[in-house]
Amino acid sequence: MEAADGHGAVLRALRSELGAIVRTDAEALDGARVDKSGRRAPGRPLAVVEATTVEQVQATMRIATEHRIPVVPRGAGTGLAGAAIGGEGEIVLSTRRMDRILEISVDDEIAVVEPGVLNGELDAVLAERGLWWPPDPASKAISTIGGNIATNAGGLLCAKYGVTREAVLGLTVVLADGRLLRLGRRTIKGVTGYDLTALLIGSEGTLGVIVEATLRLRPLPSGTVATISASFASVELAARAAAAIVSSGVRPAVMELLDAHALEAIGEHLGLDLGGRGAQLLVQTDGAAAESEADAAVSVIAELGGDSELSNDPDEGERLFAIRRAFHPAMEARGTVLIEDVAVPRSALAAMFDAIARIESKYGISIPTVAHAGDGNLHPNFIIGPPTAGPRALADEPVVVPDHIWAAADELFVECLRLGGTLTGEHGVGVLKKRWLRAELGDDSYALQRQLKSVFDPLGLLNPGKVF
Amino acid sequence: MEAADGHGAVLRALRSELGAIVRTDAEALDGARVDKSGRRAPGRPLAVVEATTVEQVQATMRIATEHRIPVVPRGAGTGLAGAAIGGEGEIVLSTRRMDRILEISVDDEIAVVEPGVLNGELDAVLAERGLWWPPDPASKAISTIGGNIATNAGGLLCAKYGVTREAVLGLTVVLADGRLLRLGRRTIKGVTGYDLTALLIGSEGTLGVIVEATLRLRPLPSGTVATISASFASVELAARAAAAIVSSGVRPAVMELLDAHALEAIGEHLGLDLGGRGAQLLVQTDGAAAESEADAAVSVIAELGGDSELSNDPDEGERLFAIRRAFHPAMEARGTVLIEDVAVPRSALAAMFDAIARIESKYGISIPTVAHAGDGNLHPNFIIGPPTAGPRALADEPVVVPDHIWAAADELFVECLRLGGTLTGEHGVGVLKKRWLRAELGDDSYALQRQLKSVFDPLGLLNPGKVF
Repeated sequence: MEAADGHGAVLRALRSELGAIVRTDAEALDGARVDKSGRRAPGRPLAVVEATTVEQVQATMRIATEHRIPVVPRGAGTGLAGAAIGGEGEIVLSTRRMDRILEISVDDEIAVVEPGVLNGELDAVLAERGLWWPPDPASKAISTIGGNIATNAGGLLCAKYGVTREAVLGLTVVLADGRLLRLGRRTIKGVTGYDLTALLIGSEGTLGVIVEATLRLRPLPSGTVATISASFASVELAARAAAAIVSSGVRPAVMELLDAHALEAIGEHLGLDLGGRGAQLLVQTDGAAAESEADAAVSVIAELGGDSELSNDPDEGERLFAIRRAFHPAMEARGTVLIEDVAVPRSALAAMFDAIARIESKYGISIPTVAHAGDGNLHPNFIIGPPTAGPRALADEPVVVPDHIWAAADELFVECLRLGGTLTGEHGVGVLKKRWLRAELGDDSYALQRQLKSVFDPLGLLNPGKVF
Repeated sequence: MEAADGHGAVLRALRSELGAIVRTDAEALDGARVDKSGRRAPGRPLAVVEATTVEQVQATMRIATEHRIPVVPRGAGTGLAGAAIGGEGEIVLSTRRMDRILEISVDDEIAVVEPGVLNGELDAVLAERGLWWPPDPASKAISTIGGNIATNAGGLLCAKYGVTREAVLGLTVVLADGRLLRLGRRTIKGVTGYDLTALLIGSEGTLGVIVEATLRLRPLPSGTVATISASFASVELAARAAAAIVSSGVRPAVMELLDAHALEAIGEHLGLDLGGRGAQLLVQTDGAAAESEADAAVSVIAELGGDSELSNDPDEGERLFAIRRAFHPAMEARGTVLIEDVAVPRSALAAMFDAIARIESKYGISIPTVAHAGDGNLHPNFIIGPPTAGPRALADEPVVVPDHIWAAADELFVECLRLGGTLTGEHGVGVLKKRWLRAELGDDSYALQRQLKSVFDPLGLLNPGKVF
């Protein structure tokens, strides 16, 4: 592909200032067109800049602004909403190689990191010091802290330990014009002006490029971790049990719910017979009250007809959790997947599962669903195409979501809103969910949000076409 | 005072649309000129609108916009930074009488409230249901939820239980032009667009008028509360002990530190002999690990030479805490007080106390200080004038802070920044701290914040002269 004249000039400027970190080889360009959502950007980006320093990020943004070229900030490309995919006429600015841990303060329970540090890498380093950064998206082994922050990543532990927003004290960001902005602080409390740190968290690369983060750490939970695996005759009973466990005062560290279709797919994948179960609820409690909380949860489960296995042994707990960990691999084996990410108030979990069942019959499809039940966050999975062997093996045409799947996903979203829920609990809007954004926000809020973006990015160069 | 012609027109419009809730009597007008900071607005406001409905708030803002009249949103007037005081040419819009609790969901651990509900009132209602809204500013008996949100109020329990931002899921706000905007959600997780709820929290009435809030509740902590009162030979040792308790992994629910000047004033006020002590550290632990955590804290205290009293009895715990509760009354008895609100990383607590001591000698003043030691938030108190009998008794002239006090406060702030700290942990900027705001934020961030305000309030009518 030959760049247009203006594109030639921007490439020359990037190469002259940044040298070899400006990649235009096919592997780099095609790799940056996709993420883990299965979405692929139309056309190839102009270049992928693999920044290793803040100054390189600033230079990239200055050049992009001068030439009016859109920029897509990107981490490890593990997003599930297409927020970090770059296409024709765009520069992809990767911070994946800015991967230094700059500081760990045991006394202040703070870490200062570059955005490309993998969540799992940080975890390992912190564990040696008895510390922990709670955000734990299922992708933590392969996703970056910068990406976690850009999407306000959640995960399995949020109901007890919070989402990313609660675990970030400050950010350094590069604005669209290349200026460097320091936001937030190193202290736990602070109300000096507006909370721009919170505004940037979850902004999906549309307001600035995150180049440094000050993270709030916790001590590693000590003592027993108790694990419960409980099967139920129906997903409704399991959902009611999940809500009842929380309203009984128990704070599970993890509470995952798998419905019958999810269990069926996992059983097939692992060669186990899980087909007869209506639903499985997996609960972990930790900390000083782990055992008494687990006992209380088992009682609630029994009252709702669930059949529990309880273990305080880590290996046995891991075995009980194996079926949950097999869910995404089982889905990938079945085909290309559209992963929904709705969240409803806990009391509406059972009703949401009921709505999913109705949508399944109406459209004659199966929607295997896993839920982070403690915070009402459901991931209904729609199979939209044949299995792929990963991004590199994508056919020439991007995955086209069939119309009846969009219609079913649409109904699911409307049901979720009706139940007091939200479009996306933790994956973000990206390109995948922007068709529904205005319906949830309302026209005034939508317009206001776009105006706020203009304050940060008056030329509209940061990740255009994403979110809005 | 006779209103100018334009002011006459706006008063007529307010009265004609809103009737008796538009107050222009001297008591209402003078009452709205002050808050608990001791600051008083120059001149009397045009009117105090005591709204009881969302529609009245909208009408007030529409009329204010039409007539280009500034509006100061106000709750119970318990602020400590002068953010809610209204003066000449301004309308004060009070939401204190919008005081209904609209919903409490035990299952979803959510409450929906109007802004004028007192924090302490909500607490009492929630406790009957085994629930709790964690934000607990020292003023909770008299401060409103709306005010707590407008200042991102903290309090004694933040290190373990978070600040207001962590406890608010959604807001309904009236914009400057009278439009109603719903922000946030009823679910624990959500990343649909920018986090405008977080942006409004702590915005001190400069972006919109909060008319409803969806609060995230917790179950009341159960079990023992252990209380430790420990005296130390010096504040430095006490501060080191506070930091060491946290880095040992203990999560105190409360950890308060009183320095020697604070103890002296409290002793004088209560008629106790506390004069010989260098500092007092008060620690409370709660939850399932309360007793083992208290034992661990006592060990850390002993290692640093502290002398502990420990009790698991609630009445005895209350007795040990009595000296902390007497701090503000003791200060008020001494004179009109300028309460600082700096926050530093925990490891810098001792250094911050050291800086305070140096400033005390340099200026020949005493700066009694209490700290929420778990989160590094210090309240140095400057005596700036004779005692008053409360706002109504203020003399005609507002309190004038003497130059050497400003100079001392200035140095204290510079030291705090040097130690990686922030200007205000929980009181907000208001009028009291705006002289320092730009120094902390930097020019770019300051300018950006003002632009964000313009998006919400293009005519600059919401609380002008506050924060910025």
